[in-house]
Amino acid sequence: MSIDLETCRAIIAAVRAEGEARRLKPLTVAVLDAGGHVVAVEREDGASMSRFEIAFGKAYGALALGMGSRSLMARAEQQAYFVSAVGAAIGGALVPVPGGVLVRTADGELLGAVGVTGDSSDNDEAAAVAGVAAVGLVAQAE
Amino acid sequence: MSIDLETCRAIIAAVRAEGEARRLKPLTVAVLDAGGHVVAVEREDGASMSRFEIAFGKAYGALALGMGSRSLMARAEQQAYFVSAVGAAIGGALVPVPGGVLVRTADGELLGAVGVTGDSSDNDEAAAVAGVAAVGLVAQAE
Amino acid sequence: MSIDLETCRAIIAAVRAEGEARRLKPLTVAVLDAGGHVVAVEREDGASMSRFEIAFGKAYGALALGMGSRSLMARAEQQAYFVSAVGAAIGGALVPVPGGVLVRTADGELLGAVGVTGDSSDNDEAAAVAGVAAVGLVAQAE
Amino acid sequence: MSIDLETCRAIIAAVRAEGEARRLKPLTVAVLDAGGHVVAVEREDGASMSRFEIAFGKAYGALALGMGSRSLMARAEQQAYFVSAVGAAIGGALVPVPGGVLVRTADGELLGAVGVTGDSSDNDEAAAVAGVAAVGLVAQAE
Repeated sequence: MSIDLETCRAIIAAVRAEGEARRLKPLTVAVLDAGGHVVAVEREDGASMSRFEIAFGKAYGALALGMGSRSLMARAEQQAYFVSAVGAAIGGALVPVPGGVLVRTADGELLGAVGVTGDSSDNDEAAAVAGVAAVGLVAQAE
Repeated sequence: MSIDLETCRAIIAAVRAEGEARRLKPLTVAVLDAGGHVVAVEREDGASMSRFEIAFGKAYGALALGMGSRSLMARAEQQAYFVSAVGAAIGGALVPVPGGVLVRTADGELLGAVGVTGDSSDNDEAAAVAGVAAVGLVAQAE
Repeated sequence: MSIDLETCRAIIAAVRAEGEARRLKPLTVAVLDAGGHVVAVEREDGASMSRFEIAFGKAYGALALGMGSRSLMARAEQQAYFVSAVGAAIGGALVPVPGGVLVRTADGELLGAVGVTGDSSDNDEAAAVAGVAAVGLVAQAE
Repeated sequence: MSIDLETCRAIIAAVRAEGEARRLKPLTVAVLDAGGHVVAVEREDGASMSRFEIAFGKAYGALALGMGSRSLMARAEQQAYFVSAVGAAIGGALVPVPGGVLVRTADGELLGAVGVTGDSSDNDEAAAVAGVAAVGLVAQAE
């Protein structure tokens, strides 16, 4: 089972709506399938140049190690060299701060991941979680 | 002047509508700003794994050399080693077949580029051109 | 709107004049457009081998995250692993110490970035700011 | 002995003057020292996004193999796989078409290289050669 484009678009719309409701800074949202490949991306006006790469790195890193990027941050706080090494091993796409969440069905099946960046990491994550919940799926932030 | 997200979303919608009208295979569409940075992407269901990278490479390569990717193909037909070398020099993101078009205003100002992949290169390009025209901008395919 | 070469040359001349007035060590100055692409560079005699890459990395990193490189240093002081990971995600061009400033119009529009290296980071930044001010534009150092 | 910044600036000015006299398209000029490190760059208004990387690759490739980039093209015409492999071995910065010339003293000492791109490769090379001659140095185009 794989995440379809319409679901990804709906997640992005819901993340952006959450960002607007919370008056967050311009967000960039990337949705990846379970293989770490881009399905849909939107970068809001005013977001800085490399926000796609950061959103992608949050989501890809989450998939790489099978945990939300908040847990990657916790690991980086303890063993920065490990997280750095994994990032290098996978080509650089691992950004270990909150905002990258796994997307699962209610049964726990992994469908993909969402990465959000633009505001504080905590707010990025809150928007990501809200976006996933809005389509009836489960976000794993840790 | 920079291309905004709503314009990019409208381009993608129009490219996809063109693909549906022509009964093309699943398309992937990437829209980049004039600096080669992702603004919006959609990969349709059934598109193969790395279609984002291909769509990106068509659009990025067009921006890199300032010509639509059809002209990159023409150059590659004559001097494959040159196009390959430029691709390496810019980090790999150059796919020299039709489907990458520059996006300009009616006055000729460069706003960004669109890359489309999924069907034949000619059809990819036709969908890209239709998508840009649909928002009142000018596509440069060569 | 894009930064033109003559403006970039004028910025470089003013940065170098500031360096001379302050008796700084040999400076290297890189000016990038808003998409992070090189417009003009000068490396003064006596500057060490890789000063271009450092100047570029200060300016590129500033554009990547939308803040002057002094703010990147502040973030690195708190979360070195984050700044390191973003650097890896964008291909390495992120040097998080002062000396990379965004260039804006008086209205706040982003035109590009300037990176300066060669003396202390604080002095590099002071020269960068002076260079941007000299052409009537606004430097964002944080 | 090493090429100094003022000489590099004078070469760039002369290349650009030649381009203007010949009514060439916007040029990008990169001057490297004998170690392949950037000393000065200028990208003219209207030049496409990645022209610095191409100019650099012409000059760097020339230094890499100790011959002007016209000879790299000749080799690529015969053994594209060799030139491609060398490009990969040195990190990608090898663009094997005319426009990259070695800079030597009248005595034959190597000072650096100039890379020019923007018009046809032949015109790029002509402008590079004219620029080096204008400062009383010798350009090696083959």
